[in-house]
Amino acid sequence: MKFHGYFRSSSAHRCRIAFNLKGLTPEFQSVHLRRNGGEQNTPEYRALNPQGLLPALETDGLVLTQSLAIIEWLDETYPESSLIPDDKDIRAKVRAFSQIIACDIHPLQNLRVLQYIKGDYGQDQAAADAWCQRWIGDGLAACEAMLQSFGNHGNFCFGETPGLADICLVPQVYSAHRFGVDMSAMPRLSKVFDACEAMPAFDDARPSVQPDAED
Amino acid sequence: MKFHGYFRSSSAHRCRIAFNLKGLTPEFQSVHLRRNGGEQNTPEYRALNPQGLLPALETDGLVLTQSLAIIEWLDETYPESSLIPDDKDIRAKVRAFSQIIACDIHPLQNLRVLQYIKGDYGQDQAAADAWCQRWIGDGLAACEAMLQSFGNHGNFCFGETPGLADICLVPQVYSAHRFGVDMSAMPRLSKVFDACEAMPAFDDARPSVQPDAED
Repeated sequence: MKFHGYFRSSSAHRCRIAFNLKGLTPEFQSVHLRRNGGEQNTPEYRALNPQGLLPALETDGLVLTQSLAIIEWLDETYPESSLIPDDKDIRAKVRAFSQIIACDIHPLQNLRVLQYIKGDYGQDQAAADAWCQRWIGDGLAACEAMLQSFGNHGNFCFGETPGLADICLVPQVYSAHRFGVDMSAMPRLSKVFDACEAMPAFDDARPSVQPDAED
Repeated sequence: MKFHGYFRSSSAHRCRIAFNLKGLTPEFQSVHLRRNGGEQNTPEYRALNPQGLLPALETDGLVLTQSLAIIEWLDETYPESSLIPDDKDIRAKVRAFSQIIACDIHPLQNLRVLQYIKGDYGQDQAAADAWCQRWIGDGLAACEAMLQSFGNHGNFCFGETPGLADICLVPQVYSAHRFGVDMSAMPRLSKVFDACEAMPAFDDARPSVQPDAED
């Protein structure tokens, strides 16, 4: 397996956690989003992923894209250390929680979107930061409410072991911290984040310890 | 089952197609996004879905949110007329295609986002339309490339019967038309759209024939 990622990409971060939880060690290919006009725009990378976004996973001639699709495929292909619950009702909750992050938070703070806001709309960094704070804050508040109403009191979002929801949560909390989002009213998310961070599978996946990390 | 939707919501539109393909007829509750300060913001609706976005599906005391999670749950609960392929590699492609739309196109043209652009950033309708055209155009171009490289020559995205990818595509093409996106370089998507539109399950789900439709 060959994994195309970037240390700061939340979507790549999700996949790194999943690889670690599964004990998989794919070859890593860095795709630098800000160098050479964005390496995601080279013809070579676009041939792999015509969307020009990260991540992409090459495996046995198959090219997989979109982090949630990649993680579900990993879970189906390497069933040990399951990331998705067997109960279909809980599975729907896990997927919905993950999609709050993957659909309604993260794409709004993506590099291409922030470039548009600053370029085409002439907004400054403070205005772009306020934009990110708004969508991250609203989305994580909904995630907190969802966990509170689900009522699991274990260490992780929906059970006693980490899975897809936790994998989506942790990179998003990293970016919440980066953009200065106030998480004081989100005790359940903060507790899950702390439990995840104590695990090597999560700790080893954090952006700052990746081979392509920069300040 | 009770379905909370709105005629013009793409996410609700996806679920309507899935219900029709499965032969399900949930009770419908309209949640008007522009009336009374947005009915999605009432305490009653927020109690169901703390995110305050559509859709939500109530079924046997369970509340499901996020359209892709709802559709996967429907497919697992009502397996006849399967919407998701059995082959895990093709399933990963279907999910990735669907997530291009559900993560990287649709949330960027959501009402709350357009309100922010016009309100906080003071942009006019033309600037908001250009924003939508950009993300819809880029995303659908990636969808087109994905289908071309997959190489299925049947009527639908990934096979001979409609499924999750087609369900996501059709509402997005509706909004592409609404925002004047040029689809002339997307022959494969256009062919799939036409094949879907010829089916009652899709035709009966279109926004203009819903009970809460307005001009």
